[in-house]
Amino acid sequence: MQLGLVGLGKMGFNMRDRLRKGGHEVIGYDPRPEVSDVPDLAGLARTAPRAVWVMVPSGDITNETIVGLSEVLSEGDLVIDGGNSRYTEDQPHAALLAEKKIGFIDAGVSGGIWGLTEGYGLMVGGSDEDVEKVMPIFDTLRPAGPREDGFVHAGPVGAGHFAKMVHNGVEYAMMTAYGEGYEMLAAEDLIKSPQEVYQAWTNGTVVRSWLQTLLAKALKEDPQLAEIRGYTDDSGEGRWTVEEAIRLRVPVPAIAASLFARFLSRQDDSPTMKAVAALRNQFGGHAVKRISEG
Amino acid sequence: MQLGLVGLGKMGFNMRDRLRKGGHEVIGYDPRPEVSDVPDLAGLARTAPRAVWVMVPSGDITNETIVGLSEVLSEGDLVIDGGNSRYTEDQPHAALLAEKKIGFIDAGVSGGIWGLTEGYGLMVGGSDEDVEKVMPIFDTLRPAGPREDGFVHAGPVGAGHFAKMVHNGVEYAMMTAYGEGYEMLAAEDLIKSPQEVYQAWTNGTVVRSWLQTLLAKALKEDPQLAEIRGYTDDSGEGRWTVEEAIRLRVPVPAIAASLFARFLSRQDDSPTMKAVAALRNQFGGHAVKRISEG
Amino acid sequence: MQLGLVGLGKMGFNMRDRLRKGGHEVIGYDPRPEVSDVPDLAGLARTAPRAVWVMVPSGDITNETIVGLSEVLSEGDLVIDGGNSRYTEDQPHAALLAEKKIGFIDAGVSGGIWGLTEGYGLMVGGSDEDVEKVMPIFDTLRPAGPREDGFVHAGPVGAGHFAKMVHNGVEYAMMTAYGEGYEMLAAEDLIKSPQEVYQAWTNGTVVRSWLQTLLAKALKEDPQLAEIRGYTDDSGEGRWTVEEAIRLRVPVPAIAASLFARFLSRQDDSPTMKAVAALRNQFGGHAVKRISEG
Amino acid sequence: MQLGLVGLGKMGFNMRDRLRKGGHEVIGYDPRPEVSDVPDLAGLARTAPRAVWVMVPSGDITNETIVGLSEVLSEGDLVIDGGNSRYTEDQPHAALLAEKKIGFIDAGVSGGIWGLTEGYGLMVGGSDEDVEKVMPIFDTLRPAGPREDGFVHAGPVGAGHFAKMVHNGVEYAMMTAYGEGYEMLAAEDLIKSPQEVYQAWTNGTVVRSWLQTLLAKALKEDPQLAEIRGYTDDSGEGRWTVEEAIRLRVPVPAIAASLFARFLSRQDDSPTMKAVAALRNQFGGHAVKRISEG
Repeated sequence: MQLGLVGLGKMGFNMRDRLRKGGHEVIGYDPRPEVSDVPDLAGLARTAPRAVWVMVPSGDITNETIVGLSEVLSEGDLVIDGGNSRYTEDQPHAALLAEKKIGFIDAGVSGGIWGLTEGYGLMVGGSDEDVEKVMPIFDTLRPAGPREDGFVHAGPVGAGHFAKMVHNGVEYAMMTAYGEGYEMLAAEDLIKSPQEVYQAWTNGTVVRSWLQTLLAKALKEDPQLAEIRGYTDDSGEGRWTVEEAIRLRVPVPAIAASLFARFLSRQDDSPTMKAVAALRNQFGGHAVKRISEG
Repeated sequence: MQLGLVGLGKMGFNMRDRLRKGGHEVIGYDPRPEVSDVPDLAGLARTAPRAVWVMVPSGDITNETIVGLSEVLSEGDLVIDGGNSRYTEDQPHAALLAEKKIGFIDAGVSGGIWGLTEGYGLMVGGSDEDVEKVMPIFDTLRPAGPREDGFVHAGPVGAGHFAKMVHNGVEYAMMTAYGEGYEMLAAEDLIKSPQEVYQAWTNGTVVRSWLQTLLAKALKEDPQLAEIRGYTDDSGEGRWTVEEAIRLRVPVPAIAASLFARFLSRQDDSPTMKAVAALRNQFGGHAVKRISEG
Repeated sequence: MQLGLVGLGKMGFNMRDRLRKGGHEVIGYDPRPEVSDVPDLAGLARTAPRAVWVMVPSGDITNETIVGLSEVLSEGDLVIDGGNSRYTEDQPHAALLAEKKIGFIDAGVSGGIWGLTEGYGLMVGGSDEDVEKVMPIFDTLRPAGPREDGFVHAGPVGAGHFAKMVHNGVEYAMMTAYGEGYEMLAAEDLIKSPQEVYQAWTNGTVVRSWLQTLLAKALKEDPQLAEIRGYTDDSGEGRWTVEEAIRLRVPVPAIAASLFARFLSRQDDSPTMKAVAALRNQFGGHAVKRISEG
Repeated sequence: MQLGLVGLGKMGFNMRDRLRKGGHEVIGYDPRPEVSDVPDLAGLARTAPRAVWVMVPSGDITNETIVGLSEVLSEGDLVIDGGNSRYTEDQPHAALLAEKKIGFIDAGVSGGIWGLTEGYGLMVGGSDEDVEKVMPIFDTLRPAGPREDGFVHAGPVGAGHFAKMVHNGVEYAMMTAYGEGYEMLAAEDLIKSPQEVYQAWTNGTVVRSWLQTLLAKALKEDPQLAEIRGYTDDSGEGRWTVEEAIRLRVPVPAIAASLFARFLSRQDDSPTMKAVAALRNQFGGHAVKRISEG
């Protein structure tokens, strides 16, 4: 089928490829003319009813794009937000588009740069009718195999991004789990090579996973991770997951610990621990390391 | 090759099967005559040099078994402890056997009841010479594919069980990660079916894994987990992992949180929270729930 | 000075008392006629410029009260929100009142039921001019001693409630700390009486505090806490603290752990741990406790 | 009464002072002749039955001191270990001394450098008879006021150090709580001065405490803690608390988080987070900070 695709960055570019290989006609728009198929949003789709997939950074840019599409699309068309929008933004976007009888689907997309070849895990929210309309697109994007193993219509508008947000929260905690395991292996003299252990975990063990295999690969490339700093960004979903957990009164100690570890990784020194060091000095006369000592 | 195997429980029984299918001659001993091949430890191995795999509960029973074997084996023989012994027990066991010039290997074995068909992930510690002797056994037990993907000679005696202990610590944290994700999906009204989301995560997503697929399977069997209580035992490795992390000064917040969650799952009520409730009552006049109110 | 006081619950009632003993003329309003001095908000203050202290539950009731006051007060008057409002609500309230040139102060008040006799810790936000106007009130409410030891003008509108929110977050973590200590003492056979240890900590130790003394008192009344359930509510501020920490990228593992412990205390069974138990059953054949087994 | 005192470091030196001011005859021994009253352990006590207080670093030095004392003391004498020994070492020490019918008491001592003037919080373990013998010493060391507010005979040998260990675990978590609060205040632009807020918390608030007042003092001396690094040692008790919590199956998330924060404060970069950064790079093409980029 025909699909407009806004945003040809790392993810959108690959998705256009995968969809075209799957036989779809994809018209991509990106502000960078060298990758864009058309000069503007208005050029995105020619055959009504039109479907446009938005794959741009969450927040203001997604918002502006959807407002822009509401101006060029018309009744019966459909917008799919495949970016990492916070699920609370979906209902307002759906309402905006509904004023012009344009449909809306939120689609959480997982798989990173590997999705091009392996397919993308998809979690979508929206009406049955809207989802049905673009099922051929979902079927091409998702991995081969049974539909229910890589695609879920998780619920009404918002459910797709909510499921994706939780997915990323789980991902944070898994990564921390593997990181803690690596650090312990690296700290223990008995272990000849943490890298070889991680390689051996890729098959047969209880902890094997796609991420685990990737860490084994990373360790093969740089067994001491000597070239990599622990500085780690967080992209919104992890923070939102903890915020939503609080709203839902769900205890998420492992996910929260993972989020806080990322915050810490970006601090030169921890103000909390400066206060602790100052306290110890006050009551116990414990030596503190002073900045002026270098 | 010929192998004596002590312990024909859930794990040992399956391993005997897999080894026999792989063409080895396995002589199994278990105190339960209905599964045992021989009446006692002395009957375990006929052809010198003998190799005996110990697959019994860690702690006293493993210890008694190794002492028993030191009495019936002789110079040039080899004992492999495939159970979940704490790695600190390996060196004493090796030393005991070395007095009689009997070799020792510690082998961490992962894979659970699925190892019979899929192969077991193996992490072993010992001398190159000893490991070489029983490599045919390891090659049959481990999954098909490259040796380094399911087997590692992690270091000297103790390294195998250390690696397995860390493996289980990581496993604890992964399970908590998936558990937290499930709880959030189940708490949010937008999500039609947490089970379907978990099913959809099994392919294409970043969080997919063997454990993740198992949770999807468990949720298919009982979508609300209505029949299962949260009460969860812990088996030693999780506790040891945190203890060793403390020794190594490695921060393991996600693993520790997972361990504490298991402790909590076995408490009728939390004494910590009883104290917190009592405190709130003292300073704020906040109502407390009294036992006598039912 | 003259002060109107809206809300004569546990906190407001005591504050009226303390202020009157301090020589102020307090006109209290409460929907319950038996405690109210006047029949309605309009009766609250007679002498211009008027100052009205709002001491009602945060959220809708505070909001309605401030809207109501904006209708009966006039230019040059002043509203102080002494309740536990989220600090993000302060600026909108200030703006609403500013339309009529009514001033606004947010005042975090700590001390619970003990404030009546010991004085209340006060953290306020607002303009220098507004704060100066009601300093006589603050000076009576705060504990005896130097003003800076029990009162802070923390910054512009919002700063008072922000400081109070953080105060309560810290309080959560302190309570958990004492709770964990109690649980450990209670679990160890060597310790004859956790209550006596807590009593002994009230003087001379590094951990002594007002809260610590209260826990010693609670344990004296019920040494096993046998009559108290761990079920613990949380009032907003703890949740907000973690949410704001996330916004500010501040790692707060101890406060978050304390918040999650409260969530857990209110669950009959943990869905996270049900998932973990289900997983263990899947891969290891570990027994699970089934509901049907009772 | 007469007391031998081994160890005249920061703690022992002050304790000798406080005891002498209390009218006791204290004979101090320290390897540094400039502070020592006698040249060796044998000179410590002249009047039988003798009591000797050991106030030296825990571990080997305490052990050697107690072995040394067992050689110069005799039947009916008494040794008090006032250092921060792990409680599991107390029973072996008691047994060693019991061979010569010398009594043993373990005494946890809290208060730091402030104990000299304010008195020391004391938690002791031992027999009623032994504790009775040196009660005059305990009564002088502990703060003025009721005995039970600064002294506890917590149980048999070991109970004193166990209670002190838990005390220090609680102390770790309280310090983290105050540290997290400070960091949040410092991160929020609305807050004019975190130092002033901490000062205002010293009176009337729920979170006020001796430690809290010390942090206010530290912040007064250096409001930004600009001169202090977060690097923080840990002294054994915090690690032991978590280890014993694991043995007792007591969940201690706040104490464990505090311990891990100290470990982290001493790392140049976190291997866990290096692994997480490496993983993100593998699956998402997320940029990592490379060491070679500086």
